[in-house]
Amino acid sequence: MNDELATRRKELRARCRGIQWHGTPDAGAELTRVAAWCAEHEVQQDVYGEGELIEGFEAKVAALFGMEAGRFLPSGTMGQGIAMRVWCGPGGHFGMHPTSHLELHEERGYSHLFGLRATLVGPARRVMFADDLAKVSEPLGALLIELPTRENGGQLPTWEQLVELCGLAHERGIKVHLDGARIWEAQAAYERPFEELAPLFDSVYVSFYKGIGALSGAMLLGPRDFLGEAKLWQRRMGGNLYTLLPNVASAASRFDARLPRFKAYRERALTLAAALSAVPGVHLIPDPPHVNMMHVALDLSPADAVLARDRVAEATGLWLFGAARPLDLSGQSLFELHVGDAAMDVADEEIAAAFGALFGRN
Amino acid sequence: MNDELATRRKELRARCRGIQWHGTPDAGAELTRVAAWCAEHEVQQDVYGEGELIEGFEAKVAALFGMEAGRFLPSGTMGQGIAMRVWCGPGGHFGMHPTSHLELHEERGYSHLFGLRATLVGPARRVMFADDLAKVSEPLGALLIELPTRENGGQLPTWEQLVELCGLAHERGIKVHLDGARIWEAQAAYERPFEELAPLFDSVYVSFYKGIGALSGAMLLGPRDFLGEAKLWQRRMGGNLYTLLPNVASAASRFDARLPRFKAYRERALTLAAALSAVPGVHLIPDPPHVNMMHVALDLSPADAVLARDRVAEATGLWLFGAARPLDLSGQSLFELHVGDAAMDVADEEIAAAFGALFGRN
Repeated sequence: MNDELATRRKELRARCRGIQWHGTPDAGAELTRVAAWCAEHEVQQDVYGEGELIEGFEAKVAALFGMEAGRFLPSGTMGQGIAMRVWCGPGGHFGMHPTSHLELHEERGYSHLFGLRATLVGPARRVMFADDLAKVSEPLGALLIELPTRENGGQLPTWEQLVELCGLAHERGIKVHLDGARIWEAQAAYERPFEELAPLFDSVYVSFYKGIGALSGAMLLGPRDFLGEAKLWQRRMGGNLYTLLPNVASAASRFDARLPRFKAYRERALTLAAALSAVPGVHLIPDPPHVNMMHVALDLSPADAVLARDRVAEATGLWLFGAARPLDLSGQSLFELHVGDAAMDVADEEIAAAFGALFGRN
Repeated sequence: MNDELATRRKELRARCRGIQWHGTPDAGAELTRVAAWCAEHEVQQDVYGEGELIEGFEAKVAALFGMEAGRFLPSGTMGQGIAMRVWCGPGGHFGMHPTSHLELHEERGYSHLFGLRATLVGPARRVMFADDLAKVSEPLGALLIELPTRENGGQLPTWEQLVELCGLAHERGIKVHLDGARIWEAQAAYERPFEELAPLFDSVYVSFYKGIGALSGAMLLGPRDFLGEAKLWQRRMGGNLYTLLPNVASAASRFDARLPRFKAYRERALTLAAALSAVPGVHLIPDPPHVNMMHVALDLSPADAVLARDRVAEATGLWLFGAARPLDLSGQSLFELHVGDAAMDVADEEIAAAFGALFGRN
């Protein structure tokens, strides 16, 4: 892409309303908000993970999930690698879905850093079931379950399927860890309190920069002993920062206001999905969506999809998606759609009409 | 310590002027400053380490040191573990001073995470010399040299000793890495441009939250290939955050103004040290100091030192140090003294008198 086109796109993007998440993240604006919040609440900075704000927030999120304790960490990649290492021990072996973040996006740190081995459980296109775990004939130290499974469009097992899977794992003496990068989204779909998750999982990772909309940050939740050992690994990985104040304050100050909104995001995702699935050339994965995210496949090549997006943006003032990637070898393109604050102000019909216009039918 | 005493101490501390560093770090106030700076400069946030501000700052610091490239990282612990792993390869072997941060303060991540082995080179009480390296009869993949050596009071080898050490390492095919946690302090003592360091070192780590006074943050500098591999490890360790904006903006916005001051800090440290070493019961390590930091030993037990500190704070309004630890089995106590902005407004005589008062001689 030449520079001129990139500049024109950036200007076009800036003029348009987005429909994804809570709008384009703006960490600079977030800093201004967080600084004012810290001043208003006379927040003292944490030093190497110790301080009233960080420890209070850890206790609060742990209590929400019915877990003994929590530990705020710079990233989920750090937290989940640590969780697998602590549960499995040296040279251990764990199971995960083939599309897990640990398998696809972390340069296999679980192996290179921690010397762990992994078995991929179940097929990529759907969530993991108890039957998939039953087919694993080796002992596993831990099983990592992502709810929802992002890479196949945010799919969730039913509550009963989840209970069965976790039950089988526990019967076999396997520790069960929840990859809760989007657990706020999943909980709104299950419509059960977070604390009902506690008996299903031995440990939980949650994220604050995605659905919650804060700066970078994550938390690991679990038993005190588990987190005591986790802290050693956090130190070894260079995750025990002099202060995490910007990250903790951003997450803690957004948490209470954002959490109750996920129910509305999900309801809105369902009505929007119904409108979109009626548009010829648009296909949803899954259809209907399980949470407030879904994959959208278009009967357009990725290159054509991006050109159409720009044309529709010029015509309607709506910016529908960022990059589009190939769905498979079919020539279709794919992108993720996350329903958050940004879409709440735009009518389903307006968004569906804009998607229709991608195919030149406006 | 009971809660009441802790509260009284906190209030006393808040009423006093400190003499360490640049005063008590206040990340909340720093956030306010950084937010305004970002708004003024219309800074766009970096996303997973890509963005104009972060890449520009990396290029700037790399150029300062005559290195090909730089990579901003959440912490030095992360950066230095990575540097050793990249230079040494799997199962590799490196050398370091017995008081190195990697040996004392990182839960031996170099071994547990990276599977590396280490040889401790030279004695703890002084810096490492070429003769110490000459005694290592095994091949080493890398040698880590900290300038100044914090744990023995901020000692520096002479420039000639340093050149000899690095030269011997290179003769033996050993990659030389600079632990530059306090390189701003060291450079002010050597009075040589940073770029003269480039031929001595294959890679460099620098820190921004200590002498520079920014929020948490570090940078790894070196050849492009080295940093390309380092990025893989950064990802594996969970150090590739969604955004590092608060940290990068804090460092980048403080850097130019702070850097030229280290010369004055060092000059001031020398006059202050001369005044302090004349106080009976006060001993400096080293004496005179090599940089703008030193260790101060008191002829008081740690418990008595802390009580005396509080008494002197009440009487003089000066807060001389934080915790005091046992020097050894002699019954003396020890703390670090860092000369920065905080001490610049208080006369040597006033500080020396306050130290004298620790022994009840005021």
